[in-house]
Amino acid sequence: MIKFCQSCGGAVSHRVPEGDSLPRAVCTRCRHIQYENPKMVVGCLPVWGDRILICKRAIEPRLGLWTLPAGFMENHETTQEGAAREALEEANARVEIGELYTLYSLPHISQVYMMFLARLVDPDVSPGIESLEVKLVTEDEIPWDQLAFTMVRLTLQHYLEDRRRGVFTPRFGEIRAPSR
Amino acid sequence: MIKFCQSCGGAVSHRVPEGDSLPRAVCTRCRHIQYENPKMVVGCLPVWGDRILICKRAIEPRLGLWTLPAGFMENHETTQEGAAREALEEANARVEIGELYTLYSLPHISQVYMMFLARLVDPDVSPGIESLEVKLVTEDEIPWDQLAFTMVRLTLQHYLEDRRRGVFTPRFGEIRAPSR
Repeated sequence: MIKFCQSCGGAVSHRVPEGDSLPRAVCTRCRHIQYENPKMVVGCLPVWGDRILICKRAIEPRLGLWTLPAGFMENHETTQEGAAREALEEANARVEIGELYTLYSLPHISQVYMMFLARLVDPDVSPGIESLEVKLVTEDEIPWDQLAFTMVRLTLQHYLEDRRRGVFTPRFGEIRAPSR
Repeated sequence: MIKFCQSCGGAVSHRVPEGDSLPRAVCTRCRHIQYENPKMVVGCLPVWGDRILICKRAIEPRLGLWTLPAGFMENHETTQEGAAREALEEANARVEIGELYTLYSLPHISQVYMMFLARLVDPDVSPGIESLEVKLVTEDEIPWDQLAFTMVRLTLQHYLEDRRRGVFTPRFGEIRAPSR
């Protein structure tokens, strides 16, 4: 919750500005309006042959559980650049980013997840600072009961289905459950 | 540029926190880190038969130029809900949101645009507070030289191409030019 103005340091009040329809943090001193908007999480599903790169989280939330490389998109990058950066940061993985594959809105936490298909340039991966361990797993080795987030499970399930069909179709949806 | 902490009102310094790789606004008093991330703009291309809904902007930027209904996604909504809300706010238009159609990163302004295909529930539209005028136009009536943003031009071009082919294919890309 915003309490002070990031521009002048004055106290803010939360009220609906004229011409707006939602309460905003409005500075009581300089009148600056500070907007809060959803955040994007960008990531990828990096494959090497029939293997998929997964990472064991070294940080909260879901420390010790497995995820696909993903993280908050940064300013001044594209969604694809963000997805490639996260693979490098979390698994020292060099990837070629392909098509957008899954996109989920999580309105209860004001986040949007975007996951891209990706190809590892080489299988030489190792844990980055946010990972305890990284692995290239076959379908049989996916730790389904130790996945960190719903969007990881859904993205893996869609990928395995589509790989069997031989056709990759993007999936867009929402995840409303309190579990991510 | 963030100058003061939104949590305690203290002065911030811009530096790379331990374990991070980018400068952040770090409070010199309470140590709170305030992240800045890209914003999502969600919108749609509402059609009624062979006509497309366009809106003449009543606000800056690009006041007086034509756009598709779109705006900043709000917290606690899905991308589709945001796109429908914008159509209602800008053109009093009731729409059924369809598939995600175009997605563009604009890294120079740290924005991501997502435009959905949409069907008007009825042709009864009128200007909302952010529009000077709204119109249902045929292909021949699109004011190509008075469009507000590059993403509007691209989305319209793709739609008209796809409508001729009879197949709608999502397009994902980036717009790096200083013009939006």
